[in-house]
Amino acid sequence: MADSGGKRLFREGARVVVLTISDGCARGERQDASGPAVVAMLEAAGVVGVERETLPDEVEEIAAALRRHAAAGAGLIVTTGGTGLAARDVTPEATRMVCARMVEGLAEQMRAEGLRETPLAVLSRGVCGVISREGGGTLVVNLPGSPAGARSSLAAVLPVLPHALDLLAGRTEHKGTD
Amino acid sequence: MADSGGKRLFREGARVVVLTISDGCARGERQDASGPAVVAMLEAAGVVGVERETLPDEVEEIAAALRRHAAAGAGLIVTTGGTGLAARDVTPEATRMVCARMVEGLAEQMRAEGLRETPLAVLSRGVCGVISREGGGTLVVNLPGSPAGARSSLAAVLPVLPHALDLLAGRTEHKGTD
Amino acid sequence: MADSGGKRLFREGARVVVLTISDGCARGERQDASGPAVVAMLEAAGVVGVERETLPDEVEEIAAALRRHAAAGAGLIVTTGGTGLAARDVTPEATRMVCARMVEGLAEQMRAEGLRETPLAVLSRGVCGVISREGGGTLVVNLPGSPAGARSSLAAVLPVLPHALDLLAGRTEHKGTD
Repeated sequence: MADSGGKRLFREGARVVVLTISDGCARGERQDASGPAVVAMLEAAGVVGVERETLPDEVEEIAAALRRHAAAGAGLIVTTGGTGLAARDVTPEATRMVCARMVEGLAEQMRAEGLRETPLAVLSRGVCGVISREGGGTLVVNLPGSPAGARSSLAAVLPVLPHALDLLAGRTEHKGTD
Repeated sequence: MADSGGKRLFREGARVVVLTISDGCARGERQDASGPAVVAMLEAAGVVGVERETLPDEVEEIAAALRRHAAAGAGLIVTTGGTGLAARDVTPEATRMVCARMVEGLAEQMRAEGLRETPLAVLSRGVCGVISREGGGTLVVNLPGSPAGARSSLAAVLPVLPHALDLLAGRTEHKGTD
Repeated sequence: MADSGGKRLFREGARVVVLTISDGCARGERQDASGPAVVAMLEAAGVVGVERETLPDEVEEIAAALRRHAAAGAGLIVTTGGTGLAARDVTPEATRMVCARMVEGLAEQMRAEGLRETPLAVLSRGVCGVISREGGGTLVVNLPGSPAGARSSLAAVLPVLPHALDLLAGRTEHKGTD
């Protein structure tokens, strides 16, 4: 456990994946601004070697990617995009498909913090959940697709994510939230 | 898009349905005070020609009415009643049955605002979700059955509903919440 | 209905069960501090003769115990433990298995109050719901396993629980939240 300015950072060796979910970005028609912004925040929090992938708004492809990265040992998968109301926005549905257990409080917290910036934060349908796997679990966190929304949502939960990954990995010495 | 006092109003042509869900009102034994209160608020926000229907607390009847109004092209269906803990309160269950995608943030916001008036707001089980249909989607919003609860819950989300309907209709020029 | 310092207390005859859910406590390897803390709070609120049981973190055993106590006429079942992220934490999943109707607002309120004490409150996955039964319903409330978390979560919803039990028992004279 490292420490920086009083904030808990990610452990060395934490494996984190960032998925940009956007038809436009997947087709190369649109520049991905949110993915790099999310990666930069995770690196600033101590994550090394963040993996990245870009996917279209297809529920089966998203679910398959979540399962694949979980099976490969990712501790945390952060998605950006596909959490809105448009017909193609299906990231939360894909996340629910693969997560055995949901963590509603993380999504509530992201929306509560988002409300400080825009009333439209209530329309973000992002969910958070855990994909069970050998030796632990993989936490999935859905962020909105806009760079501002993705940044503020991630900032809202980032301080507790290292502890969450510890609990998922079986390092449960602190029993404060079981 | 019209504008009034800085608040976004509903677009011309927005099709909105208000469903009063109450055994007593459906049997004509009880006066419906909440339905008219909800209609008045929607009209003040620019909706013309709100349709109304009264239904008993029967999960299949409610689900069928939601599907029927969605298929007929409603952009928004607002229900009032049936969100409590009594055995007959099944509006949220009917809503979940027909909605492919839920919008948890709207329900959270209604309860958070309701808490300013009564601690009992936490017992309101209303949900919000989207019924998929050709050419877009229909947003369903469950309000409590009491006039005061219905009014305060609707007021909590009314400012973002026009934007939500735009997103559902494919008018996604603003990507702030995708 | 009794009254004490302005706070509504539980009705005489209210049947309440407290379930401690913890592998360590079930095996007798760990002292249960949260169960007694929860019982003390309920007794201070007027509940007489709280029943108690200790269970391991096994989803089927927890679900069976919830069903059994509901069938035996409990109005309220309060669980403590098994709401975290560790692989064995399955209390919310067991609760969802047996509850026909969920009460999201109670869980939201517990987390919102918990946030005043620790940012880790967002990781508590506790849910609340209703098990349908003859003559009413049984409310299930999941509290965290730590004594501090259990106490603050219960305190957050305790004032509305007597009213909730009245509604579940069909005493719906107040229609403020239907």
